Amino acid sequence: MKSSVRIVEVGPRDGLQNEKATIATADKIELIDRLSATGLRSIEATSFVSPKWVPQLADAAEVFGGIHRMAGVRYPVLVPNEQGYERARAVGVEEIAVFTAASEAFNRKNINASIDESLERFAPVMERARADNVAVRGYVSTVLGCPYQGEVPLADVVRVARALHDMGCYEVSLGDTIGVGTPGKARAMLLAVASEVPIAALAVHFHDTYGQALANVLACLEEGVAVVDAAVSGTGGCPYAKGASGNVATEDVVYMLHGLGVETGIDLAKLADTGRWLASKLGRETGSKVGKALATT
Amino acid sequence: MKSSVRIVEVGPRDGLQNEKATIATADKIELIDRLSATGLRSIEATSFVSPKWVPQLADAAEVFGGIHRMAGVRYPVLVPNEQGYERARAVGVEEIAVFTAASEAFNRKNINASIDESLERFAPVMERARADNVAVRGYVSTVLGCPYQGEVPLADVVRVARALHDMGCYEVSLGDTIGVGTPGKARAMLLAVASEVPIAALAVHFHDTYGQALANVLACLEEGVAVVDAAVSGTGGCPYAKGASGNVATEDVVYMLHGLGVETGIDLAKLADTGRWLASKLGRETGSKVGKALATT
Repeated sequence: MKSSVRIVEVGPRDGLQNEKATIATADKIELIDRLSATGLRSIEATSFVSPKWVPQLADAAEVFGGIHRMAGVRYPVLVPNEQGYERARAVGVEEIAVFTAASEAFNRKNINASIDESLERFAPVMERARADNVAVRGYVSTVLGCPYQGEVPLADVVRVARALHDMGCYEVSLGDTIGVGTPGKARAMLLAVASEVPIAALAVHFHDTYGQALANVLACLEEGVAVVDAAVSGTGGCPYAKGASGNVATEDVVYMLHGLGVETGIDLAKLADTGRWLASKLGRETGSKVGKALATT
Repeated sequence: MKSSVRIVEVGPRDGLQNEKATIATADKIELIDRLSATGLRSIEATSFVSPKWVPQLADAAEVFGGIHRMAGVRYPVLVPNEQGYERARAVGVEEIAVFTAASEAFNRKNINASIDESLERFAPVMERARADNVAVRGYVSTVLGCPYQGEVPLADVVRVARALHDMGCYEVSLGDTIGVGTPGKARAMLLAVASEVPIAALAVHFHDTYGQALANVLACLEEGVAVVDAAVSGTGGCPYAKGASGNVATEDVVYMLHGLGVETGIDLAKLADTGRWLASKLGRETGSKVGKALATT
């Protein structure tokens, strides 16, 4: 296990885009500023996907323009195409994230493209990012199962992750979008990808739909992964299972890492405060058990 | 990792005794009968601790007398002393569980006795159980932390676990009562105990107060433990952290085990149905993420 792990906080993007309740633009800005003060080094701030598809983040430009960017903290934003890239750059974005799925059926349903077509669509964005010295993170979703095709062949996960890395993504995040994975499968998936992409360039991204997220994170840490995506307060839900849990809660991941003696640079008490504050804005209980426990002790 | 794991379902006892809402005696009986039909092989049915201390389970005799005991299923009950033993035996109990803590401060506060005194109190119960051919399970609580003394020395956990085993407990369950443990500490604790008690005679018992329970179970499975305590629907709460989560949910453990290719003999769909039924009786949402996810797919 690595002695230090970087958390990529995805709550402001992956979390909020899948919550039923929306919060005000000012609250999104306050959320990111609070997160910046916890010691987090990567905070995915918002998404420049068309507001038609993600109305929850239609205020992406205002949010990004409103936050206080702290030195030493990365603020990637999701970008689907050149148009999104231009909108993002216009407000000073310095890091983007592109995304595709390891499942053919998921890509067909979601963006009406094959995996290869979806990768081709990134090519001009990657080129511009390279020219502009903009860092690019890549997401591979449905790495442990797909809501449409069920099983996703490991070979497809490896091929897509490698393609993103080869295209210039400095880091590839492997996402169990529907949270069906268990630790043995998560470990096998990670090792398969790590046979073609350096593990230092890999992140893991688990949703807690079936309660497995933290156990899956543990299994991947044991294989040497050093970057973990998580969302404060466990926001996110799952569009394919109504009322289900969202992303693994950052608080719970950090509690585990600190307990394992792994350094994160994060102030857990501040983080848990922020998670409860966010939950109150969303009108629900925090989705982090650590957040709940620390509130009552 | 073992190819087969036995779950000890503790919901009807450890779960219900810590829930704010109480359910009718008939519902407790129905709960156990439903659990018996899922393939579970061990179901802790109730507690013969004085109703003064555990009013939620004051109907222990009626519950035990009312259930349909299936062949091949064990139904241990909690017993604190000879009086409890006699009440249990009067209704046909064939297996009991005794309990103490690895923390001196916890024993002092809870039963006004030192660890050694608490062990001495069991001696007559153990003798009678041996004479009656009644199997005895032992619980060690606070193995990873104590609400009163904080850190609990590993040596104390080992000593207490070994004492229970030496006194005749066929199995010793190691309980993180306040759910503060993380996988590295859980693993180290298990290995320390396993150096003096055969691992085949050990069970692990995690509460999910800080969301770590399933990750802790995974770490212990990797070390070869073959018995896991869990409560359907994640009932239980934590008396030391109001509103906090309870026992690890049986559904989530079974989902993980089956995903790891580990056999449990349990019908997960039936188990999840039972968990949601119990939650409805308790007037709350199921505490199992698997239970929630399976309800919506």
